[in-house]
Amino acid sequence: MGSMGSDKQITGWAARDSSGILSPYKYSLRTTGAEDVVMKVLYCGICHTDIHQTKNHLGMSNYPMVPGHEVVGEVIEVGSDVTKFKVGDVVGAGVIVGCCRSCGPCKSDIEQYCNKRVWSYNDVYTDGKPTQGGFASAMVVDQKFVVKIPEKLAPEQAAPLLCAGLTVYSPLKHLGLTGSGLKAGILGLGGVGHMGVKIAKAMGHHVTVISSSDKKREEAMDDLGADAYLVSSDTEGMTAAVDSLDYIIDTIPVFHPLEPYISLLKVGGKHVIMGVINEPLQFVTPVIMLGRKSITGSFIGSMTEMSEMLEFCAEKGLTSTIEMVKMDYVNKAFERLERNDVRYRFVVDVAGSNLEQ
Amino acid sequence: MGSMGSDKQITGWAARDSSGILSPYKYSLRTTGAEDVVMKVLYCGICHTDIHQTKNHLGMSNYPMVPGHEVVGEVIEVGSDVTKFKVGDVVGAGVIVGCCRSCGPCKSDIEQYCNKRVWSYNDVYTDGKPTQGGFASAMVVDQKFVVKIPEKLAPEQAAPLLCAGLTVYSPLKHLGLTGSGLKAGILGLGGVGHMGVKIAKAMGHHVTVISSSDKKREEAMDDLGADAYLVSSDTEGMTAAVDSLDYIIDTIPVFHPLEPYISLLKVGGKHVIMGVINEPLQFVTPVIMLGRKSITGSFIGSMTEMSEMLEFCAEKGLTSTIEMVKMDYVNKAFERLERNDVRYRFVVDVAGSNLEQ
Repeated sequence: MGSMGSDKQITGWAARDSSGILSPYKYSLRTTGAEDVVMKVLYCGICHTDIHQTKNHLGMSNYPMVPGHEVVGEVIEVGSDVTKFKVGDVVGAGVIVGCCRSCGPCKSDIEQYCNKRVWSYNDVYTDGKPTQGGFASAMVVDQKFVVKIPEKLAPEQAAPLLCAGLTVYSPLKHLGLTGSGLKAGILGLGGVGHMGVKIAKAMGHHVTVISSSDKKREEAMDDLGADAYLVSSDTEGMTAAVDSLDYIIDTIPVFHPLEPYISLLKVGGKHVIMGVINEPLQFVTPVIMLGRKSITGSFIGSMTEMSEMLEFCAEKGLTSTIEMVKMDYVNKAFERLERNDVRYRFVVDVAGSNLEQ
Repeated sequence: MGSMGSDKQITGWAARDSSGILSPYKYSLRTTGAEDVVMKVLYCGICHTDIHQTKNHLGMSNYPMVPGHEVVGEVIEVGSDVTKFKVGDVVGAGVIVGCCRSCGPCKSDIEQYCNKRVWSYNDVYTDGKPTQGGFASAMVVDQKFVVKIPEKLAPEQAAPLLCAGLTVYSPLKHLGLTGSGLKAGILGLGGVGHMGVKIAKAMGHHVTVISSSDKKREEAMDDLGADAYLVSSDTEGMTAAVDSLDYIIDTIPVFHPLEPYISLLKVGGKHVIMGVINEPLQFVTPVIMLGRKSITGSFIGSMTEMSEMLEFCAEKGLTSTIEMVKMDYVNKAFERLERNDVRYRFVVDVAGSNLEQ
C-alpha cells in the first residue's frame, strides 16, 4: 500500500471524435494520493449517457474520451489514508468522482448536486488532468466515491446498479415513496426502466409498465414481474387508469407529452423525470393544479444512497438483467443500445477482454 | 330556525353572455335543507377567475351567471341539523360548495380535489339547479362549506382570504414550507401574489418579489414588507440569486418561461404554480433533474385549511389590502382588474349597495 512513485500507464477504449467510435488508447493514471483507491476494472455497464457523451450530443465533449461510469473493480492499491477499503475488495464507482465538500449539498451528503462535482469522465480532475472512465484496465478514484459491492451480489450484476439502479432508488427514497402498497407507473423499459420495475417490485409496489406499443408486454409481466401493462394509445385502458398511480418513473429519453401520464396520477402524485431531454417538455397548468401533482426529477443519487441501494438489492436478491459482451463488441453494443436493442443493459467484461487489439 | 317553507326570491348581479357584463338578476334560493346555512351577503371579493368565468374564457360558462366566490356574510337562517353556526354569526364561503363525501380526497379532508366537487357558481347543485355566487343579497351553502370568520378579522378584509389567501396558504402547509427562515420568491404581485408576500412574511420567511419591471419595487418593499425585489430582466441580479430560494409562488396568469425562475431555486426547491394557463408551459428536464427540483401546483385549499388560515391571519394580524367598491362599480372593477389596475383586491360592499338598480 501507499503511494506509487510514478504514474501508471494503462489502456482504455476512447472515443476520438464525435463519431463516438471507441478504440484502444494509452494514458496514465495519476499518482495514487493518500485518499485514492486504485482498482483493476472487472466490469463496466454501458449507459445511454455514454452515447450522448461520446457523440457530443450535449456539445461539451473533449477527446480522447474513455467513457464508462458503471464500474466494478477489484482494489489493487490504496492510498495511505484509505481506511474503508483494502486490496482485494470488490468495489464500485459511478457517475461522480469528486465534489467541493463545503457547499450546502456536500454538507448534506447529496454531493451529486454539488456545483463543483467532478464527472468520472469527460471532466477535469483536481489535478488539472482529464478524468477517464471505466472502459479501461484500471481506474483511480477518491475513496469517498468508491462503494463496497456486497458479497451477495455478482459483480457483473452490480455494475448497472451503480447508475441505473441508483437513479431509480434515490428519488423513491427522497420523495418518501419506499413504503409497500404504493402504485407505480414505469414509463419506458430500457436500462433505467427495467431497474424501476425491479426496485419498485422489491419495495412491494404494484407496478404498471406503460409503453407505446404492446411489444414488451410479455417480458414486462413474465420476465420482470410487472403487475400490469398499459399501452399509451389504448384510450380505454388509459381512461380506466386515471387517478390510480402514486408515482410515475418516466425514463423516456426524448420529447413526449406529459398530460396523458400525469392524468394517471392520484391527487398528490409525482411524475419523476429521468431522461435528459433538451427539447422542452410541456404541460398546461390545470393538470398539475387540480390534484396538486408534481413534476420532478432527480440526478443519480448520493454515495450514501448508493451503499443503501446495494444493500437493499443484496437483501432482496435483486439483480439487473444484462447482456455481457467483450470490449471488441463495444462499438456494436453502442449501436444496438442506440436503437434500444438490448435487454436491458450491456455490461462489458473488461478484465476478460483483450484491450490492446 | 329550521327549514323555510318556500324558495326565497333574491337579487344578484349576473352576466348574461360572454361580454361578461353584470346586471341585476332575480332568482330564488333553494329551500333551506337540514344542513344548509343561509347568509345575507356582506362583502364579496373579485377574483381573476370571475373574469374567466363571466367572459367564458374556459368555454364552460352557462348564463345567467352570478359570480363571486370570496363571500363573507351574516347567518340569517340555519337548517335543523346545523350545529356549527347560528343566526348572527359572521361566516365565509369560498370556491367550493359541494363534494361527494366518499372518494379518497373527500375522506382525506381535501375535498377541493373531489372529482364531483360543486363550484360556488357556474355549476349544478345536487338539486339540479345552477349554483350562483356571492354578488347577491343572499346565498345558501351547506354547513361543510361554511367557515366562521374570526372576530379579530374585519369581515371585508377576510373576503379575499377565502380564495387568494387560502390559495397561498394551502400549498405552503402541504409542502411543509411553513417553518421560519425559509427563502421565498413571489412571482407576480396581484391579488394572490400580495397575499403570498403577506403570508410568507407572517411565517417568518425572507421574501423576494420577482417582477418584470421595477414599477412595483416601492410598494413591494414598503407597503407589503418584502425583503428584496428582483427584476427578471436584470441579468446580474438574477445570476446573483441563483440557487437561493426554497420555493417560488408563481402567480403569473399567462404563458411565461419557467427556467429563469427554476434556476433561482436551491436543490430540492419547489416552483408552485397558481395560474390557470391553458397555453402549455415549458421546461427542459435538466433544470429540474440537476437539483431535484419540483414544478407543482395547487388548487385553493380544504375547508380545514381555510379555518386554519383564517386563525393564522387573525393571530398574526394579517389582512388583505383591498379597494372597496359598491355593486354599481362592479363592471368597471372587472375592467380594471383585467388590466391589473388594483392594489390588490377589489371587494364589493354588497350589503351596502343597491342591488336593484
